Amino acid sequence: MLTFIGLGLYDERSVTVEGQEALRDADRAFAEFYTSRLVGSSVEELVAYHDIAIEVRDRAGVEQDPEPVLDAAEEADVAFLTAGDTMISTTHVDLRLRAHERGIETRVIHGVSAQSAASGLTGLQNYRFGKATTLPFPGAHGGDDVPASVVETIEVNRERNLHTLVYLDIKVDDPTADAAGLAEGEEYMTGDYAAELLARGWADELAVVVARAGSPDPLVVADRLSELATQDFGGPLQLLVVPAEPHHLEADALEALGGAPPELLGRE
Amino acid sequence: MLTFIGLGLYDERSVTVEGQEALRDADRAFAEFYTSRLVGSSVEELVAYHDIAIEVRDRAGVEQDPEPVLDAAEEADVAFLTAGDTMISTTHVDLRLRAHERGIETRVIHGVSAQSAASGLTGLQNYRFGKATTLPFPGAHGGDDVPASVVETIEVNRERNLHTLVYLDIKVDDPTADAAGLAEGEEYMTGDYAAELLARGWADELAVVVARAGSPDPLVVADRLSELATQDFGGPLQLLVVPAEPHHLEADALEALGGAPPELLGRE
Repeated sequence: MLTFIGLGLYDERSVTVEGQEALRDADRAFAEFYTSRLVGSSVEELVAYHDIAIEVRDRAGVEQDPEPVLDAAEEADVAFLTAGDTMISTTHVDLRLRAHERGIETRVIHGVSAQSAASGLTGLQNYRFGKATTLPFPGAHGGDDVPASVVETIEVNRERNLHTLVYLDIKVDDPTADAAGLAEGEEYMTGDYAAELLARGWADELAVVVARAGSPDPLVVADRLSELATQDFGGPLQLLVVPAEPHHLEADALEALGGAPPELLGRE
Repeated sequence: MLTFIGLGLYDERSVTVEGQEALRDADRAFAEFYTSRLVGSSVEELVAYHDIAIEVRDRAGVEQDPEPVLDAAEEADVAFLTAGDTMISTTHVDLRLRAHERGIETRVIHGVSAQSAASGLTGLQNYRFGKATTLPFPGAHGGDDVPASVVETIEVNRERNLHTLVYLDIKVDDPTADAAGLAEGEEYMTGDYAAELLARGWADELAVVVARAGSPDPLVVADRLSELATQDFGGPLQLLVVPAEPHHLEADALEALGGAPPELLGRE
């Protein structure tokens, strides 16, 4: 049996009760933290809290060598852990299908996603979000600018009057991080860094930075991109939302919860 | 202090550990179950499991008379519970802003959303979902057909090669349920019912029904809409996804996990 468990957004208590119980009942637990991380917990803290040894596998250990996980799942109850929701990475789906092919029963225990948090914390309605996109570090995609695909996603969503959730690049355990010239501690793109990149095309447009979603001290700041580019939102993880024309209640929320200047909400 | 807690998708163990702890620490707990329900738990089971009295408020009791909740939150630690994620309904955002205005500290503890589950269970990649939509019961929106807005959302997403998550109507505690002629037990739209409505325009198109996401026995069935319309997917909650052209791994998942006929995946 192979149970995929999304650990949620922040620390060892971000998992669901069902996920916690499944993890405690598991015979063995594997994890990958290269697609995302729990910034509020170390692996040691996870191990202590859930009282189970956790074998962390790197990208190569999951993508090129999934057999040890599958072999274990053939004989015992195995949990496969990821930060945030599970099945976000194609790797997880691939692993599940391989298990399925081998006749290993699988189960998915969902975790809270950044998408839920982006909507829940900003007050922007979830049904008004269009396709999401990811902003990569310059250099990581062979150019110094915002990739055309990111610009296009934001623009097409705006034409349809939809919000865009912009995930910010994470360069943990990624061989291209060196190529992008990232120093230690710069593996997580920050909201101000992202705003600076996007401000090149949309300096005066309203955007919202959400920092540390799912933690006890999340931060929501709504302002024009050129202003967001000058601020410091603290530690990771951070993400950015480019809102469509906000509805009345959404505008209220951006002003009350994110400090959006009224003139950016068409209120002056 | 007013803490909004999303209870997650299915039963009393679908909440996060953080949410469970916040609920246990609360002095009072209110809940609304008219926007969604935990079909795996009764209120009595929630009360017993979390060891706290839960005051369930109906639509009028939240939307027109929020003062008792706010008054309580001014003096004590109050939890406000919803099924699924919190802040999905504008009512929750409105309540949060009213608390904010009165100087009451608020906190949001996210729950797993149907969106996460739809993506996680089907193998369809979350970044390929466009805007979501809700299919109402005929009669509930003044017509017998699929509303133009639903058709348009699906069509525009398809043009952009994006999946569409179709939430299915829930008529719990809704005065229009009688008007729609719904009998007891028919308050939750089923996947076959939805497929029948959508098959009028797209009989041969591939769709995916997801039943009981977040439960121990979720069901995923991928087939043409006219076929899905003839099937029985069991109990609630159910939802439907109209996929875009699936990528290779997505097609593998729909075939292996949802039994999609290969010819609908362009494989024959």
